[in-house]
Amino acid sequence: MSDASISEFDRDTAVRRLSPGEYATDLSARWSFGQVLNGGYLLGAIGRALADALPHGDPFTISAHYLTATASGPAVIRTDTARTGRSLSTGSASLVQTDENGIEVERIRALATYGDLDSLTGEVRTTAKPPHMPSYEECVSTNDAPDPSLIPEFARRFAMRFDPATVGWAVGAPSGSGEMRAWFAFADGRESDPLSLLLTVDALPPTAFELGVTGWVPTVELTAHVRARPAPGPLRVALTTRNMAGGYLEEDAEVWDSTDRLVAQARQLARAPH
Amino acid sequence: MSDASISEFDRDTAVRRLSPGEYATDLSARWSFGQVLNGGYLLGAIGRALADALPHGDPFTISAHYLTATASGPAVIRTDTARTGRSLSTGSASLVQTDENGIEVERIRALATYGDLDSLTGEVRTTAKPPHMPSYEECVSTNDAPDPSLIPEFARRFAMRFDPATVGWAVGAPSGSGEMRAWFAFADGRESDPLSLLLTVDALPPTAFELGVTGWVPTVELTAHVRARPAPGPLRVALTTRNMAGGYLEEDAEVWDSTDRLVAQARQLARAPH
Repeated sequence: MSDASISEFDRDTAVRRLSPGEYATDLSARWSFGQVLNGGYLLGAIGRALADALPHGDPFTISAHYLTATASGPAVIRTDTARTGRSLSTGSASLVQTDENGIEVERIRALATYGDLDSLTGEVRTTAKPPHMPSYEECVSTNDAPDPSLIPEFARRFAMRFDPATVGWAVGAPSGSGEMRAWFAFADGRESDPLSLLLTVDALPPTAFELGVTGWVPTVELTAHVRARPAPGPLRVALTTRNMAGGYLEEDAEVWDSTDRLVAQARQLARAPH
Repeated sequence: MSDASISEFDRDTAVRRLSPGEYATDLSARWSFGQVLNGGYLLGAIGRALADALPHGDPFTISAHYLTATASGPAVIRTDTARTGRSLSTGSASLVQTDENGIEVERIRALATYGDLDSLTGEVRTTAKPPHMPSYEECVSTNDAPDPSLIPEFARRFAMRFDPATVGWAVGAPSGSGEMRAWFAFADGRESDPLSLLLTVDALPPTAFELGVTGWVPTVELTAHVRARPAPGPLRVALTTRNMAGGYLEEDAEVWDSTDRLVAQARQLARAPH
């Protein structure tokens, strides 16, 4: 990207402060599956508002509850600061929209603690290991799909490459593993950063597809921990579901950067359609 | 327990509605380590207030951010309903206390979605497996500790039995595994239920102790998913830390009931002392 251009993600998560703690945003259908805007994309917009509202700029831990589906178009994000400290600050955020009857409806409520990732001690005692996956070149692109016109608008935002072991669902042969793995990068070349990691943890197809579930798997709640600023280069994302029961499932996400650092972890609770 | 008695947990997390969305509670030092009240106990009190405020009674997913240490004694919990639906409702809660200067300070802010666990479909496709642990009889009790007077007040609330493989820290020989496992039951015989699971996920000693860390490991944020009403009998709790880095760590908790059902999952972000 040239210096004069802004990335899709930054343009489509931009927020404009209307007054202290109140932000306007214009949500883009480019980040939707059909009519439904991706939860991670929405978390990116909310995260950007909180980064402006709070004295610390990096989300350390953020939880969002998705109340009703968010439509593309105008939205307002209202933030409320709970506490500001030396190393951490905490605040809530509500994303609201005006519905067709002129009524303001809260779409998403979030709660987050922010800090400064660059101020953290460098000591890394991570025992988790990066996922076993083929190299970027050996993974498969949605551009390899039988009919490119079927590629969802959302998927065009990324240069994602999937572990072939987790794409059986795309050809009607789900593995039953409850796993999804991909190399993640933005199609327009934007490097990842702490804010875009909020999108990354929700950017892959649902693990439920590999469990033979078809149709929408709506997120009820998503909590993400951002643990380090990602190094440049593609990220590896590994999703795992181990507890699909009672009509709900959890989906765990790990995001690894090019230095094998575990830069983000997330868990969402989603509804598993019948 | 006789019919006339109330369990310690229910007595010490009781809330009294002062007005719509405002509850008084009296927090007990019985649930503290030294001066610090346990985060799971506090989540139990908050969870009880939300269960009263929302039309659904079971926490499905709840996140709490711990802003400043909560003292024993009086506290007020204020709730705010975000949305009520047919199967799920969502609300926020703030636990506040008046400090020694007469100033009201917010100690904890939480966000939760509630539902009705008994209305869930019975289909269970869980692939996760219960933890490998010795039987209850083969596990070790804090009553076996060299000096019973050193047993923290908090520990006396439980009839907990620890996997011997995870108690090296108690004798100065931490395993380095970042794991903690125990059988969990209340000392007074109270059966577990969805609300008490909020305590259970934070009731064990920190995994950090098995990583050689000593001292307080304060919780920044805790998110718990309650997935099923636990069957009667002791629970198995398995904690795992895999990403201690930059002065923070994540601690994952799984709670299994006597029917081998994964009834609760939680993850907290905590500060790892130097």
